[in-house]
Amino acid sequence: MTATAPAQIEQAMRHALSLAAHGPAWGVNPQVGCVLLTADGTVLAEGWHRGAGTAHAEVDALSKLSPGEAVGATAVVTLEPCNHTGRTDPCSEALLAAGVSEVYYSVADPGARSGGGGERLREGGVAVHGGLLAEETERAMRVWLTAERGRRPYVSVKWASSLDGRAAASDGSSQWITGTAARQRVHEQRETADAIVVGTGTVLADDPSLTARGDAGELMPHQPVPVIIGERSIPEDARLFQHPGPVILTASRDLPAILDALFERDIRHVYVEGGPTLASAFVAAGLVDEYLIYLAPTLLGGAKLALGDLGVPTLSGAHALHIESIEQLGDDLLITAYPKAPTLPHHDRER
Amino acid sequence: MTATAPAQIEQAMRHALSLAAHGPAWGVNPQVGCVLLTADGTVLAEGWHRGAGTAHAEVDALSKLSPGEAVGATAVVTLEPCNHTGRTDPCSEALLAAGVSEVYYSVADPGARSGGGGERLREGGVAVHGGLLAEETERAMRVWLTAERGRRPYVSVKWASSLDGRAAASDGSSQWITGTAARQRVHEQRETADAIVVGTGTVLADDPSLTARGDAGELMPHQPVPVIIGERSIPEDARLFQHPGPVILTASRDLPAILDALFERDIRHVYVEGGPTLASAFVAAGLVDEYLIYLAPTLLGGAKLALGDLGVPTLSGAHALHIESIEQLGDDLLITAYPKAPTLPHHDRER
Ligand SMILES: NC(=O)c1ccc[n+]([C@@H]2O[C@H](COP(=O)([O-])OP(=O)(O)OC[C@H]3O[C@@H](n4cnc5c(N)ncnc54)[C@H](OP(=O)(O)O)[C@@H]3O)[C@@H](O)[C@H]2O)c1
Ligand SMILES: NC(=O)c1ccc[n+]([C@@H]2O[C@H](COP(=O)([O-])OP(=O)(O)OC[C@H]3O[C@@H](n4cnc5c(N)ncnc54)[C@H](OP(=O)(O)O)[C@@H]3O)[C@@H](O)[C@H]2O)c1
Repeated sequence: MTATAPAQIEQAMRHALSLAAHGPAWGVNPQVGCVLLTADGTVLAEGWHRGAGTAHAEVDALSKLSPGEAVGATAVVTLEPCNHTGRTDPCSEALLAAGVSEVYYSVADPGARSGGGGERLREGGVAVHGGLLAEETERAMRVWLTAERGRRPYVSVKWASSLDGRAAASDGSSQWITGTAARQRVHEQRETADAIVVGTGTVLADDPSLTARGDAGELMPHQPVPVIIGERSIPEDARLFQHPGPVILTASRDLPAILDALFERDIRHVYVEGGPTLASAFVAAGLVDEYLIYLAPTLLGGAKLALGDLGVPTLSGAHALHIESIEQLGDDLLITAYPKAPTLPHHDRER
Repeated sequence: MTATAPAQIEQAMRHALSLAAHGPAWGVNPQVGCVLLTADGTVLAEGWHRGAGTAHAEVDALSKLSPGEAVGATAVVTLEPCNHTGRTDPCSEALLAAGVSEVYYSVADPGARSGGGGERLREGGVAVHGGLLAEETERAMRVWLTAERGRRPYVSVKWASSLDGRAAASDGSSQWITGTAARQRVHEQRETADAIVVGTGTVLADDPSLTARGDAGELMPHQPVPVIIGERSIPEDARLFQHPGPVILTASRDLPAILDALFERDIRHVYVEGGPTLASAFVAAGLVDEYLIYLAPTLLGGAKLALGDLGVPTLSGAHALHIESIEQLGDDLLITAYPKAPTLPHHDRER
């Protein structure tokens, strides 16, 4: 089903990918982009999805045309058109109704209910080609696709340490290990997530506000939900209760059960910010999809480690990572890495 | 005294720098390159220094000319011509005798006995310009200049760890944390040093052979001296006693005194390979000139840290580093870093 497409179509798909990125990174719905072309390859209209409850990318693009204008057109869309009536009508039906005669999509919709749009279009007489630039789209949609396929939130774990792996100096001082550029990036990453997750230990020690803030300390437009993991209770006057949205207190240490419950509450992407005990528990349990390791150009020594025990008895049992990128942020480094062995969806996991 | 030189001269200096690199990186003598130009900028001859007891770069270049050919020439040389009769005659005299009328050098010779060549040449009527491309030359000659200026060996400290700062798994297994490309680089770095330094703990635990070896395990042409630091004695059948050269057993923990003694024995560059206790002691004492941190893309957790305590009580006391480069070696990273505050020469240091 992998398509070999003319250069015009491939170019349109790259453009659709860049349109997709205009949509919000958070929420239950994916970032999707769509370009409509005439049979000879001229761009007719473009669209993207602006988040749950708004028009899907295909419908957004079609909405810019007059009736009849899309007859015989080619739709180039990053995700297989949906086949599901939710808050909006299925895109497959909208494309058929508009008279589109050819559809290129990049990645199949993994949704049990939303999938099958390609098949529906084929039945309606449309020439359908999947798989174009699938690798690029898989990368761009990694968070949503992982959550959708595994029926569990995508787990990013972030920590900041010295080059020798310390999260704080001996007296506990850790503000700030990294510089402003790195800390601002953390706020930007927070904003792309549905939830910020920390352990009770961090709340009790640091009393963090757990908001996503801009350069000047102002709240960003999207605020992920703060989620506190652990059995201890949090003082009523903790700063996180001033959060503009709801706060989730789990009163539990059962990470798989907590992730399941968060997924049920439409949380697709959690950004775990520590502390060391909770981060280590996520790593040891094999629950991490993405590592965001901020390294400051310092050496601290001592006992305040960014990660504690990971249940690795011998070298061959190490958690092996694939380093995706290394960025310089001010004087600091950000290493983005994925586990070499992919994380398992919940139902395959031992509980 | 910083020269603004025509483009031809600057180009010749860059070439002289690349010639210098042909010489050996180890030993008491610096890597130096020299280019001789006619008054109109044509290259007459080039030379470089091949190590103690052989001709200096200027003399090497002059040796390629017939008598009289260098009269009125310009000498472009990376280090100020020496003014000292050692195993060879002073370069200042050789340049004067050859009738050279102009000299450009990059960095002044810091040697108490060898310095002053520029002055001697000026007295002899030569137009002398120092400081051309000084930054590049300082970088290229960092090891030799630091040792010469501080009258102590340049100290490189290397370790290999996981991204969370562990040198081994819980059971002590550490072979191999990094891959073949990183390990081969370690052997190349060993070969550029005068001594490989390890603690007694590493010898007793690993029984290393402490040789510099090539891809196929063959001995490299230059073998640095193994130096063992610590009070415990080493078993007579330890592998390092099969080393082709002499071995230095210090029977001491006094790092400044040991470095002084090594400098007296013509050791200008030590490559400290650990273990964790000895490396931490070097860091804590502020004795490190260069950090070579190999990071494997793994997480290990547990108690086997690459660095232990560094005597840093609070964050503002962290050892701050300047990251010079980050290289990908196979799947591993090599971070080369310098201390932000330069290490002190011995006589300024508290003992
Ligand atoms: N450098 C960084 O990136 C960074 C980031 C965050 C925090 N920190 C520092 O870390 C320190 C706090 O460290 P911490 O390790 O105590 O904090 P933590 O990891 O936030 O909290 C630890 C607590 O999490 C709970 N928990 C929940 N699920 C768990 C599980 N599966 N396994 C084990 N524990 C679980 C336990 O509390 P219950 O007893 O309540 O169940 C545990 O005591 C603070 O000083 C903070 O400044 C540093
Ligand atoms: N991953 C890596 O890069 C790497 C590299 C090397 C070794 N290792 C591992 O490290 C382990 C050995 O660790 P280690 O820390 O025991 O080895 P070590 O650092 O080689 O040796 C420690 C010993 O050095 C002596 N020493 C000398 N000067 C000292 C000073 N100023 N302060 C403190 N001690 C001083 C002390 O022995 P005395 O009692 O004799 O004075 C001390 O016990 C081995 O398992 C080895 O595999 C890992």
